[in-house]
Amino acid sequence: MTVETLRWRNNQLELIDQRRLPAVIDYVSYSDAEAVAHGIRQMVVRGAPAIGVAAAYGVALEAQKCIPLSSETFHVRMISAFEILAASRPTAVNLFWALNRMRGRLNNVSKEENTMIAKLLLDEANAIYHEDIEINKKMGALGASILDDGMRVLTHCNAGALATAGHGTALGVIRSAVSAGKTISVLADETRPFLQGARLTAWELSEDGIDITLITDNMAGHFMKSGEIDAIIVGTDRVAANGDVANKIGTYMVAVLAKEHNIPFYVACPLSTIDLSLASGDDIPIEERPPHEVTGYGGVRWAPANIKVRNPSFDVTPARFVTAIITEEGLAYAPNEEKLKRLF
Amino acid sequence: MTVETLRWRNNQLELIDQRRLPAVIDYVSYSDAEAVAHGIRQMVVRGAPAIGVAAAYGVALEAQKCIPLSSETFHVRMISAFEILAASRPTAVNLFWALNRMRGRLNNVSKEENTMIAKLLLDEANAIYHEDIEINKKMGALGASILDDGMRVLTHCNAGALATAGHGTALGVIRSAVSAGKTISVLADETRPFLQGARLTAWELSEDGIDITLITDNMAGHFMKSGEIDAIIVGTDRVAANGDVANKIGTYMVAVLAKEHNIPFYVACPLSTIDLSLASGDDIPIEERPPHEVTGYGGVRWAPANIKVRNPSFDVTPARFVTAIITEEGLAYAPNEEKLKRLF
Repeated sequence: MTVETLRWRNNQLELIDQRRLPAVIDYVSYSDAEAVAHGIRQMVVRGAPAIGVAAAYGVALEAQKCIPLSSETFHVRMISAFEILAASRPTAVNLFWALNRMRGRLNNVSKEENTMIAKLLLDEANAIYHEDIEINKKMGALGASILDDGMRVLTHCNAGALATAGHGTALGVIRSAVSAGKTISVLADETRPFLQGARLTAWELSEDGIDITLITDNMAGHFMKSGEIDAIIVGTDRVAANGDVANKIGTYMVAVLAKEHNIPFYVACPLSTIDLSLASGDDIPIEERPPHEVTGYGGVRWAPANIKVRNPSFDVTPARFVTAIITEEGLAYAPNEEKLKRLF
Repeated sequence: MTVETLRWRNNQLELIDQRRLPAVIDYVSYSDAEAVAHGIRQMVVRGAPAIGVAAAYGVALEAQKCIPLSSETFHVRMISAFEILAASRPTAVNLFWALNRMRGRLNNVSKEENTMIAKLLLDEANAIYHEDIEINKKMGALGASILDDGMRVLTHCNAGALATAGHGTALGVIRSAVSAGKTISVLADETRPFLQGARLTAWELSEDGIDITLITDNMAGHFMKSGEIDAIIVGTDRVAANGDVANKIGTYMVAVLAKEHNIPFYVACPLSTIDLSLASGDDIPIEERPPHEVTGYGGVRWAPANIKVRNPSFDVTPARFVTAIITEEGLAYAPNEEKLKRLF
């Protein structure tokens, strides 16, 4: 895909506004941590790896902004920046992974002058950015082996270039399979309420000339039953040590249906999405988002007024439904704690 | 619910425009069979029993319109009217059931003068209308026994007053349980793409003061897993002789998830929805509707241009997923051909 999810321009972070895609291609500029945290919360940027990269730049931006301050104030402000960014969204662990990495770097260079610290933190954010793309390409090359020529693949939400610094996780596997000469057709769940499938997956795959067909979320079971889906690949926001997978709401339904129909269900993610500190998916915090996302879309409200709404943004798929987790260090079939630890 | 789904006014059929609910309460008037067929196809009226009642009035309207013609031309026009109405939508068998009943009545009185035939056909349509409400109330009273005080019930699409002449099938069971003094809370799938759950079920239950919470279709599995759903009740557009159930797209996913979580899955319908002429659900024709219903809603398009779309409007749930079929003649647990035949 030629469009960039995140870019560094004129000492600012620019994020493609994913709330407006694909109708409008527009970048929003960010110059400090609080603004980046707001952008993450508002889903200007979304997707676990992309959130991590954006947060890393948020730290770098805050350092850059605080250069003129005293060393003491600089460090107080940095502590606050980490807190603000960490509170932006709770489920995707890549956010905390990236903040931990940036915090480690800051601690290592804390004796330097502010200007040097800011430069080194920007270098670190850039490294995270470039590593993310490389990791996705490696994951894609390894994962492409699961896809045979002619396969019809269902995906849910967007685990593509737009969910990462580039190439994508689940869609990266599909991209790599197509690059290797295989004909792959993709069925995309629209993924209510934010419509990442209809707006982002459908767009980025069609931009790349990959065969894509859009369906509503509730059609996936019908097409599994009618024999029109050969494999499922999704991304994830956090994998617990036992292999339980948190991902966009609806993933669990797809996984249960896949098992019912003996269709393999794959999850693609970088190691930074695997959280060995949590024993199981029961420990993964699930964000509940505002009601207005469910009662309508894009300024159109279709539900009646004063209606109660539930809006969990993620669900947890137990490891027993997962055929394999695809990472940059290899595939873990029938994932469990032992197999996941071996990847690190 | 105080609002009427269909009503006979000034020698015309008036249908509440279900495409515009709940934002706008507006009735559209129909004066011949072709117009009614168009209204059915455009989903001004939807829901299997309501479609049947509307089609019956379509026949009565055509007869009324053709009174001035010669007897021969009258009967040619009536044959054409039946064909036009039968071609409006393929899945809901109540349409064909109602047309067969009207055709039987016409055949019985075909020697009468046009004016008398038109009167008798209108009487028959009125009878179908009133019987539908009575049947739903009977079904509700019988079905209410499955719901205990305090139960949390998931429903998909709209099988309510708006899907029938009144009271509803699945929602009729809930209404009857509430009338019997039970506290029932309802979780409504929004039901993409036409949003019958978000627009119609949420509206008619909240109008009646029944506790209703709206979710997107892809959340149902999450709430089953979290123990927040005690029972599922849906309507149906056609039940095959072996107990397979065709209903709004997404019903199959809910049924598979229900089985996974040991949650009872009930289907409520009048006997006129049971089609003993079809051996299994494989024989039920599944309508595929236009792509624009999936690529956006209400004039807002969110999918990219030139995207491929699939839009099956129904799916088939095999009988083994159905706990019981609730009819006006009793409940058929673990439905099969023998048990369904016994109801008639």
